[in-house]
Parts: sequence; C-alpha cells; structure tokens
Amino acid sequence: MVSPNRRRILVVNPNSNEVVTRGLADALVPVEFQNGPEIVCLTLAQGPYGIETQEHVESVTLPLRQLVASRNDVDAFVIACYSDPGLHVCREATSRPVFGINECGVLTALARGERFGVIAIAQRSIRRHLRYLRQMGLLDRLAGERALDMSVAETASGEKALEKMIAVGRQLRDQDAADVVIMGCAGMARHRAPLEAALGIGVLDPTQAAVAMAIGAVQYA
Amino acid sequence: MVSPNRRRILVVNPNSNEVVTRGLADALVPVEFQNGPEIVCLTLAQGPYGIETQEHVESVTLPLRQLVASRNDVDAFVIACYSDPGLHVCREATSRPVFGINECGVLTALARGERFGVIAIAQRSIRRHLRYLRQMGLLDRLAGERALDMSVAETASGEKALEKMIAVGRQLRDQDAADVVIMGCAGMARHRAPLEAALGIGVLDPTQAAVAMAIGAVQYA
Amino acid sequence: MVSPNRRRILVVNPNSNEVVTRGLADALVPVEFQNGPEIVCLTLAQGPYGIETQEHVESVTLPLRQLVASRNDVDAFVIACYSDPGLHVCREATSRPVFGINECGVLTALARGERFGVIAIAQRSIRRHLRYLRQMGLLDRLAGERALDMSVAETASGEKALEKMIAVGRQLRDQDAADVVIMGCAGMARHRAPLEAALGIGVLDPTQAAVAMAIGAVQYA
Amino acid sequence: MVSPNRRRILVVNPNSNEVVTRGLADALVPVEFQNGPEIVCLTLAQGPYGIETQEHVESVTLPLRQLVASRNDVDAFVIACYSDPGLHVCREATSRPVFGINECGVLTALARGERFGVIAIAQRSIRRHLRYLRQMGLLDRLAGERALDMSVAETASGEKALEKMIAVGRQLRDQDAADVVIMGCAGMARHRAPLEAALGIGVLDPTQAAVAMAIGAVQYA
Amino acid sequence: MVSPNRRRILVVNPNSNEVVTRGLADALVPVEFQNGPEIVCLTLAQGPYGIETQEHVESVTLPLRQLVASRNDVDAFVIACYSDPGLHVCREATSRPVFGINECGVLTALARGERFGVIAIAQRSIRRHLRYLRQMGLLDRLAGERALDMSVAETASGEKALEKMIAVGRQLRDQDAADVVIMGCAGMARHRAPLEAALGIGVLDPTQAAVAMAIGAVQYA
Amino acid sequence: MVSPNRRRILVVNPNSNEVVTRGLADALVPVEFQNGPEIVCLTLAQGPYGIETQEHVESVTLPLRQLVASRNDVDAFVIACYSDPGLHVCREATSRPVFGINECGVLTALARGERFGVIAIAQRSIRRHLRYLRQMGLLDRLAGERALDMSVAETASGEKALEKMIAVGRQLRDQDAADVVIMGCAGMARHRAPLEAALGIGVLDPTQAAVAMAIGAVQYA
Repeated sequence: MVSPNRRRILVVNPNSNEVVTRGLADALVPVEFQNGPEIVCLTLAQGPYGIETQEHVESVTLPLRQLVASRNDVDAFVIACYSDPGLHVCREATSRPVFGINECGVLTALARGERFGVIAIAQRSIRRHLRYLRQMGLLDRLAGERALDMSVAETASGEKALEKMIAVGRQLRDQDAADVVIMGCAGMARHRAPLEAALGIGVLDPTQAAVAMAIGAVQYA
Repeated sequence: MVSPNRRRILVVNPNSNEVVTRGLADALVPVEFQNGPEIVCLTLAQGPYGIETQEHVESVTLPLRQLVASRNDVDAFVIACYSDPGLHVCREATSRPVFGINECGVLTALARGERFGVIAIAQRSIRRHLRYLRQMGLLDRLAGERALDMSVAETASGEKALEKMIAVGRQLRDQDAADVVIMGCAGMARHRAPLEAALGIGVLDPTQAAVAMAIGAVQYA
Repeated sequence: MVSPNRRRILVVNPNSNEVVTRGLADALVPVEFQNGPEIVCLTLAQGPYGIETQEHVESVTLPLRQLVASRNDVDAFVIACYSDPGLHVCREATSRPVFGINECGVLTALARGERFGVIAIAQRSIRRHLRYLRQMGLLDRLAGERALDMSVAETASGEKALEKMIAVGRQLRDQDAADVVIMGCAGMARHRAPLEAALGIGVLDPTQAAVAMAIGAVQYA
Repeated sequence: MVSPNRRRILVVNPNSNEVVTRGLADALVPVEFQNGPEIVCLTLAQGPYGIETQEHVESVTLPLRQLVASRNDVDAFVIACYSDPGLHVCREATSRPVFGINECGVLTALARGERFGVIAIAQRSIRRHLRYLRQMGLLDRLAGERALDMSVAETASGEKALEKMIAVGRQLRDQDAADVVIMGCAGMARHRAPLEAALGIGVLDPTQAAVAMAIGAVQYA
Repeated sequence: MVSPNRRRILVVNPNSNEVVTRGLADALVPVEFQNGPEIVCLTLAQGPYGIETQEHVESVTLPLRQLVASRNDVDAFVIACYSDPGLHVCREATSRPVFGINECGVLTALARGERFGVIAIAQRSIRRHLRYLRQMGLLDRLAGERALDMSVAETASGEKALEKMIAVGRQLRDQDAADVVIMGCAGMARHRAPLEAALGIGVLDPTQAAVAMAIGAVQYA
Repeated sequence: MVSPNRRRILVVNPNSNEVVTRGLADALVPVEFQNGPEIVCLTLAQGPYGIETQEHVESVTLPLRQLVASRNDVDAFVIACYSDPGLHVCREATSRPVFGINECGVLTALARGERFGVIAIAQRSIRRHLRYLRQMGLLDRLAGERALDMSVAETASGEKALEKMIAVGRQLRDQDAADVVIMGCAGMARHRAPLEAALGIGVLDPTQAAVAMAIGAVQYA
C-alpha cells in the first residue's frame, strides 16, 4: 500500500515509442524504494516516434507544459529526452522541480570525473548539444562528443549497439581524454554497466542521474 | 535486518564537532529508505573542532584519504564540509565514488535555477570558495556569495542564525539576482525549509544534495 | 514595377499585434531601395497578442517554421521578436538565411561599442535574455540589461515610454559603462533617434540591425 | 544625379595595390542601390603594397586616422583589411561609425552558423588573428583557422587560388566542424560564390559583411 | 668597470617627459646589482609628452620598433607605458624578449593575490585597458579598475596624488574585493610603498614587475 | 661579506631528493648577485622522494606551512615543485610572498609567447595540471600539455631525457602551435638551453621564473 504522503516523480518520455518508456522503467528499478517516492514512467501521447530534429523538439514543448501544469499529483518531473525539450517552458508552468536528463547527466558527470565525454546517437545532434552546453555554461570540462550514427531504434534494440558504443567510448577516453562518459540518449540504459566494464571509467545514464536528483528534491522538500 | 547486499554511503564530517555530525544525520532522515542504501554519518576523529582556514582543510586531507582507503565496506563517500577537503586525494585512493558537498551543492543548484547564490559563514572563506568555483569551471552562473559573519557554532545553534540567513538570502535574491540559494556550510540543514519559505526561491543544503547523488551512484552501479 | 529578379526579405512579427507590424514597416523605410530587395512585413496570424513568456515563445515556433518552409518566394527571413522564437527550428527548415533580431542586435552592437547595454521591457525577461546570450557565447561584452517594467503596449504607444527609456539608458551608460545600447524589443524603433540624442551614445533597433544583415545576405548571394 | 542628402560610405583599402581596390569595388556592386548610400572605394596612398606583418599594420594606423578625421563628407568608414588596422584609433577620431572587416566578418558569421572557420592567407597571421578574436571576446565559436600559404597577390589573381581554398574549406568543414566559412582577406571576394557552391555551407566575404552593416548604420541614422 | 659580458636591459619611456624617465630610473635602483644586468632608462625622443589617447599610442609604435631593431647591444627591452604601445610589432622585430609593463604588472599580480585591482590615471583609459586584458585572456581575476581622474603630470608630481590613490585603492579593496593592486601608470613608483602601507595589501609598480621578469630573461639565457 | 640588510629567498624542494635540490641551486647561479638577495635552496626533510601523486602533494602541505611560519629570516619563499603543493596554506601563514613554480612558469610564459605548451613528466599528472590551470583562470592560452612518460629520476639524470624532451617539444610547437614551452618539473633546468636551441622557441624553467619574480618582490619591498 502506498502511503498517502508518499512523493511522486513523473518521468515523461516525450516520444511515443513505448519500448523506450519501458526501458526507462527498467532503468529506474534500483531506486524504487519501499518508503521512497513513487516513480511513474509515462509516454507522451502527442510525441513523435523519435525526437531527432529541432522540429521534433518543438513539437513536444507545449504538450509537456500542459502535462506539467495539469498533474497536481506529482512532486517533481523528469523530461526523459537528451534534447531536454520544453525544459524552461515547463519550469515556467510550475514551482515544482522539473529536471532535464541532459542537464542532469552533465551535472552528475562533473561530480564523477574531470572531463566528460558524450556518446550521441547521430552526428547532426552534436551541434545542438554543444549549443545547449554553451547555454548552460558547462562547456569548460567537455572532453568531446562523438556519434554512433545509429538510429534511436537501432541503439535501443540492435545487437551491435553495445559494440559500437564501446568503440566510440574508447575514442572519447583515449583521444579526447574523457574520464567519465555520458550516454547521450534516453534509451541506452541497459548498456550502461557493460559499457562501464569495457571502458574502465564511469559511464552515466542521464535518466538515472536525473531521477537521483529528483529523489533528493522531493524528499528533502 | 539489513540485507547483506544493501549499499552503504559513508558521510564524513571532517571536523570533530559531534553536534554537526548529528545535524547531518537529522538532515538525511528523509532519504533513509527501507530497501535503500544505509547512510552512516561519521565524525573524523582527527579533525579540528571547525574547518575555518586553509590550514584546517589541509589537516584533514590525509586522514580522510586513509579513511577512504580503509573502509572497504562502503560503496560511496560524502565529505561533508563546504571546503571539500581532500576530495581529489580521496578520489585517487579509490575507484568508488567520492562526493564533496560544495561541488554537489553547486551542481544541484544548476538544475534548480538560472543563477545561484551562496550563503557563506565567514567573509574570509569567500575568496577560497570563488577559487574553487573557478577550479570546477562553474563560475559562469554564480549570482553572488555573501557571508553571515557568524562562527560555525553560532550558525548551527544560535537563535539569530535564521534571521541573519534570511537577510543575506534576500540580498542574494534581490541585489545579485540569484534564483536559487546554497547554504554554504555542512551545519545549516535545519534552517533550509524556513529559509526557503521566507525567500520564496529554492534553498539547497549541500550535504543533502551530495547524498542524493551518492544514492544514484550506489544504486545504479 | 518590381523586377522579377528582385530579392525579397520577409520580416515576420510573431505576435498578432498589427500596430507592431506597422511600426516595423516604418522602421525599415530607410532601407527600401528602388533596386534593392523588397522588404515585406508580415503579422503571424497564429501569434499571441504579445510575446512575454516562454509559453508565448513556444507557441509560435512551429507556425514560424511552417511559414518559412512554405514561402519559396522569399530569399531571407527576419524573425522580429527579441526572444528570437523558433530561430533554430526555422534554420533547420530551410537553407535560406534566417535572422533573429536579438542575435543581430547584439552582433551589430559589438561593431559599434566596446560593451553593450540592453533595455528590456520587463524584469522577468532579463533572465531569459542572459541565458540566450550565454547560449550565443556573447556574454563577455555585456555591460548590463535593465528593464523598463512597462508592457509592450505601453512601450510602443505610451507617452512616457521615451522618458523611461532615457532614464534606463543613462543607468546603462553611467552605472554599467555601456557605450552602445540595444532596444530589447521589436516595437521601440521610433524612439531610437531621440534616445540616441539624449544619451549621446549609439542606440540600436534590433530589427533594423537584422534587416541590414539580411540585405547583405540576399544581395551578395 | 546623386541626391545631396545621399549618404556616403568610404571603403578604404589600406594597401596600395590598386588591383585589390578594384576587386573591392566589384564585390560591392550588388549593394549599389539607386537611392541608397554611395559606396566609394579608395586606395590608401601611404599604404604598403600588401599588409602581411604587424609592421605593415602599424604603418597605416595614423594615415587611416588622418583620412577619417579629414573626410567630413563621409557617413561611415570601412577599413578593408583583415587585420583591422587602426580600427580603434580611427574610432577615437570620429563619432561616425568605423567598421573593420575582420570584426564584421566574424559577427556576420555568427548569425549564419554555429561555428565559423577562417581561411587565412598565411600561417603566420593566424596567431595574430587568434589574439584579435580573443580581444573581441569572440573565440567561443571559432571552429578553426587554416592557411592557404599563398601570397596576397597569388590569392587575388592566381588560377590555383580557388582550388586551394576549396581544399582548405573542406578541412574546416570536415575536420573542424565549421558550418560557415570566412575568407580571411580583403582580396578574395570573386571566389566567394564558387567556394560556397563547392563546400555546400555559407561562405562570407568580410568586406561585403562590413558594408552591409555600414549601410544599416548610415541609413537608420 | 662593467664586464663585457654583462647583460643589458633597456627600459624605454615612450613619452618625451624626462621627469618620468628619471622616475623609472629611481624605481629600478633596488635591482641595480653589481654583477647583474645593466639597466638603462631611455626617453623615446619621438614620443609625445604624455600617452593618453589611442593616437598617442599609435604614434610611438614604429619608433619603438625602430629602436628595438637598431639596438643590438641590448638583451631585453621593457616598454614602460601602461598602454604597452607597440609590444607586438617590437616582438616581431627581434627574437630578444620585449616586455610590456601592463602585461607584466598583471601577470605578477596574479602571483601575489587572488583578484587584482588597477588604479588608472583617467576614466577614458579604462575601456582600453579592459579590451587589452581581454586580449591577453586575463580578465577572469580582475576585481576592478578605477580612475584617479588626474593628469599623468599631476599623478607624478602633485601633492594630492597619494591621498587620491589611497582613496581609490580602498574602493578597490573594499568594494571590488581586490587583494592586490596595480598602479596603472609608469610614473607612480614613488607612491608604491606608502600606498601599500596605507592599504595593507600588496601594491605593484608595473615597471618594477617587468624589469624583474626581464632580469630573469637575460640572466637565464 | 653579506650585508645584514641583504634579502633572503628560500627555495624549498618539497621532495627529499637532494640531487633535485642541487639542481635547483645550479639553475639559480645566474641570479646570484653580489648585492642581491641571498638565494638558499633547501630540501624539505619530511618530503617523499618524489612528488608524483596527489597523496604526495598532500603529505607536504603542512610541513611546508610550518617551515614558512618558522623562518622569520626569509623575505620570500619559492615552492619548487610543479604541483605547487601547499601554496595557499603557506600564503595563509605569512604576509611575505610565497611563489609556486607552476604558477610563475605559466605567468612568465604568457609574457614570452602567445600560447604556451607544457612538457609533463607523466601522463597522469596532466589532468591535475589542467585542473590547476583552470583554478588559476589561465587556460585560455594553453596550447597543450604532453608527457615524457619518464620518472622524475630518469628526467633529471637519464641520458635520453633531452632527446625525449625535444621530441615532445616539437609536438607542442608543430601540432599544438605553442610558441613558448614550460618544462613542467623542478628537475629539468639543465636541459633548458639545449632544448631551446633545438626547438627555436623560448623554453622556460619554472623555478628560474619563480625566483626572478621573487627577486622583484624582495628588492622592491
């Protein structure tokens, strides 16, 4: 039985791919505590199947805002897409904490290494990510970002994804001097542990990072 | 009964003031989850009564390193002093995560506001804190740091502490345009909620921030 | 008669206030050249009456994108709102140049002075503007931004607007050491000349700045 | 017949090579508007044949200042050399706008791409250019600068110049991730269009960029 | 008798005020070592009586270059004017070290304090100095720069100079949080010790700083 | 006979390797002036045999502080280890100047070139050095740092050290575009001149740089 006072964290997958949402839920099992906050993973019904362009990003900002504004039963929100779509408009809509997984992934990485590397899905998103890092004022300790050049779907399900991630992670570690790596996507969590084992340096799943911060935000309030 | 697989986070108070350590324990009750990691607060026996100078900082770096190296029963460490003493030497001593509360406080603040303010205990520590922010590459979003000019003891126990914190917090909010405030000390946690209520913007206790990150680190591993 | 080869610049007012659009057209008369590019000012039908919040910003990004994608008769676009709504999603939608007036106002100011000041309409937009300056990597030479704390409507039409702008401009010049000032709104152009006369330093209307850049972009192509 | 009120922009080639001056005039034909500002290209009589060293730069600063101070019939000045010689001393000599083509080239590039590349004539000038970018506070979005290692004369007239520029432009695009390229010299304008066609990303001639800004400055005054 | 192998440092006063040159010589007596480098102070004959504008700066760059190129009997040069006129063109003219007193004053200050303040002669030079600090990449630790608003002549000889310097120094220390102060002029050396005594924090004469660096450069060669 | 007023600079080798201390003394002979400050090189008895880890660094901070506090016969201190161990705690202990050789090496390099390179002993120290450069706010002009991957002992005495340093120095010069090189260790001074001859660009020994600054500090006081 859930206590009526139990806090609730809503983790929103802004794309409409239910496989990704189930992957988020799996990734968050380790922080499902009996007397801790309830963690609910939700697919944004209006989202595109994947968020790969700026247009996809823009298409979910207002639906996310509406969701945030309407869910008074939630204590903190996590937007589980590495583009952090709608983060600022959602924050404008509520005084409750709203976390973006890109932001939280980078912030958490800064506590785990001196310089972080990012594994992106696609080459074309790197430019957008760099602009966002600049916006956050967090570029100084970027070692580098490199792309898998796979689709989100391939990354989540394909057999060769881990192999490719290890190869890219090694470039970040050896050529860019990263000592911690962020998986730059919401759908890679199941590769975190084997990737970390293969690289020998810390590997972070950004959704996990965001939810840890959200747990703090709701429990200490 | 604690599960043999339950993770353990060791929160070390590097000064020898047991009142501070008990305050840490109190501040962390909200993240004591039944099936979550065990959170142990410890006073560093060799620590000075308060850490107010660079000499105090240096005096605990090797004892902290020794502690970290010797405690194989611990999954992550939190150094609970806003000077983050010995953070890098402790990280050198172990592959397990070691968190500093200043670092985690700032990183968490960056997910909660656009520009952060810091309430310091003493004027003379501000210079040291700014140098440390520059070291972390995290100065860009500092709104300002202002001092209470009280002793650590006064801050932790004195009746006028909250009143003074509210006054300083208002300066950070109104003159420096901070939209989130970090309490720059390990011993202020009990003032967090009333200070947040008085200011109307987020207020963070850095030890709480660090332990939330540590929970993520040990649970997702 | 317009030459079939004559270039065309579309200046879009993303809010639905026709008074603002007419003000844009008036402001651009000085660059209406006989054999130069045609400059067309357009009101975005779907826009809110004013763009004062992040939600307003988000509400026009996809309509702007659609407009850009559909107008094949246009050689360059200017988004005439100081929040630069939809700038990147519009750029994604076309290989033709798309200019934002905030970006162009700041870039032009950097060629006219050592440190620029910004006159904002409202206090609450300053935080958003600073984040955007950081995103562009153009914070280094900001002297300061100060708000009129008037509504867009008051600024465009009210009699006291100029008086207030002079007062704020003097603070930027004397307290913040700005030597060039940007009027941080699309609807202030008619105040530019008297404000410049009163301050004795350069004053820039950002829409005018953007259209000068757009003229270069279309003519040299 | 020129209207007595017609504005005048003086574009000064600070070297004494008339071929370069004629090239400037050719490059500016597209912004020769019937009722627009008169654009006059002038060779600085006292200039060296090319400006390739810091000594060359220094040799023209006071002659440029004298020219600016003496030409009361001019509304804005453009110093058409990528070293921006004498820019600040000329600005000190007049309240009319003075534009440097390096500064304007970079500022315009920032409105056309996320990260800019520069094609320099000679390797030894890159160090000077980087120092100047740092002075302007505009280094953050530099992708890279690479040299043709040709003389100014070869670049302006040689048949192999374009071929070499394409090769260097591809390195900027592919290895340095530039998405807009500045031709770092006053004498390359005729290569702009074919270079842009070959690279598939925007290519800017800095003199053209400066004159577009100057048109805005004189027309809106 | 001077050893034929004795090194020689030429300290050039680029203005033609002999009083300033004699002041330089007085300031350097403490580093006149018997078997150390000979330190020669020279007035640039072609210099203006004071260097207070950018035009003054430009007027001495080539004469300084010529001097540097012609004096083969000198092992290192110090340009003793806080505008560092001609520094880069002189460096281009020789492989021997050339030091500017502004550059050396700031670099030395960074080894003496956490944040430096600068006492400028005139308000109008502050903008130029800030641009130069940005060029050097050394703005991060500037606490502030404040002007005496006295002429160079008044500063060097007037009775009220010290009094005014103490007042400005206190503002730098107390309002800007400087913990070391640079006297931003070549002609203030005799005030260094009393100013330091009055302020209780380090005060640096930039010519002295430059000559110490020059001694290292010539002796270790 | 030494004058009773003669100043004294204490150069402390924080490791206990007397060979290194003798090397320091040899390196400083060129600034042993008859009527200049006495330069005393001292081995820290409590130091480890080499300082290669953060633990080594921490182990000497308090002994250094104690030394500084106890030596009232000294006018300035130089900590001769490229990790600048204990620099800030020593500065807290005295109002006399304390110099770190890393800090002084970098500051001196900035007066000798546009971008500096660093030759490190070991790969693992580069991360620590970069963090320290960031702390000092001096990263902007770093060209690169590359490691010899030799032990301190090999570097000081081995025959192949110079050969390796030349190879690494060429990479810094040619691949990283450094125009001045710092030898990132206290024990390399005897290689300075031949390395400079081989590279054709300035090479700095950081202890020599620090002592030149210290001479200025004590003589001008």
